[in-house]
Amino acid sequence: MSHEQFKQCIEECLRCMQECNHCYDACLNEDNVQMMRDCIRLDRECADICAFAAQAMSRNSQFAKEICALCATICEACGNECNKHAAQSDHCKRCAEACFACAEACRRMAG
Amino acid sequence: MSHEQFKQCIEECLRCMQECNHCYDACLNEDNVQMMRDCIRLDRECADICAFAAQAMSRNSQFAKEICALCATICEACGNECNKHAAQSDHCKRCAEACFACAEACRRMAG
Amino acid sequence: MSHEQFKQCIEECLRCMQECNHCYDACLNEDNVQMMRDCIRLDRECADICAFAAQAMSRNSQFAKEICALCATICEACGNECNKHAAQSDHCKRCAEACFACAEACRRMAG
Amino acid sequence: MSHEQFKQCIEECLRCMQECNHCYDACLNEDNVQMMRDCIRLDRECADICAFAAQAMSRNSQFAKEICALCATICEACGNECNKHAAQSDHCKRCAEACFACAEACRRMAG
Repeated sequence: MSHEQFKQCIEECLRCMQECNHCYDACLNEDNVQMMRDCIRLDRECADICAFAAQAMSRNSQFAKEICALCATICEACGNECNKHAAQSDHCKRCAEACFACAEACRRMAG
Repeated sequence: MSHEQFKQCIEECLRCMQECNHCYDACLNEDNVQMMRDCIRLDRECADICAFAAQAMSRNSQFAKEICALCATICEACGNECNKHAAQSDHCKRCAEACFACAEACRRMAG
Repeated sequence: MSHEQFKQCIEECLRCMQECNHCYDACLNEDNVQMMRDCIRLDRECADICAFAAQAMSRNSQFAKEICALCATICEACGNECNKHAAQSDHCKRCAEACFACAEACRRMAG
Repeated sequence: MSHEQFKQCIEECLRCMQECNHCYDACLNEDNVQMMRDCIRLDRECADICAFAAQAMSRNSQFAKEICALCATICEACGNECNKHAAQSDHCKRCAEACFACAEACRRMAG
């Protein structure tokens, strides 16, 4: 598969990485940081696998499909957690959207 | 400094990361791989620090400036190496351009 | 699962990461670098997933098992490639051993 | 500089990476997570640069000194933060010790 074919999935991973890191930072600044523990953890998990997947795809890794399958799983979990806080926190809302879009793009890559 | 203020520098880092990884992959496919050894090494160095810097900026790291200063140094070195092959290889030409643009954006962040 | 329970698998991942990076560096210095292309690629793939898995386990990631399953797959592939050069290159021999040991530890974690 | 010469500094970075990730996980489980915000942030910063430095040294990066200089700065900051909680939390005490040992090893590498 070519660099170009990976392009859209890479874009989703990099957008998701940024939203997860932004959400992580914002959650750590919340008054009610207790409530955001799982969100903080999952934001880091998700940002890290998204960065990893984007690097792998852009170097044309032979394991891109397997890595994207794992990325989809973690994005889905992070999106579900962020969604619980979406009504209260705009950063969680935007993060959940980016996670679900990335999960879908990764599933297509993996499939 | 806010997420938004980092935005342009993050974009340059992520573009440079992708071009470096693409160039790394293409160099490893070249007939004359001997000649591309330094390019392969520097592409990996540069892709890795660019990904690191983008992650750091997007989580609002207190060390973003120091990380961007280091990123600028490595981008400059990678751009100089890729530039030697720019006449023969389109991937090196595009990589060099992305490296120099990223080096400049990182110097502004660091400064 | 506790930090302690992950300890042996983390150790194998970190040893494998180091051997893969050492092998990558040595392969890029070989006279016959053409012959080492796949080894160079797989060394990087393997070093990166091993570092990723070690980070994930040491932060008690809820995805440690899935990440270790992927790590085992990549270690196995890298070990197989390095094994082809084990008679000629001591760095490939040591890398293959570290890869197979890590693959086994990761499979135990994943299972 | 050879793989062997980097050996001790790599060991300190990998030990520090593990303690920082362990401390990050433990801080997120503390009743008083509010008080540990800065520790959580710095643990991640420090774990990530330590992993990055260990990877760079083990691939014989030409930027190992600059990367270790940055790593020393971040380890020092993380050690200082963890030290504030060392009397109450064993994970912070052990993390601070690993950070200061790593900072010293990295300064020697950089110098």
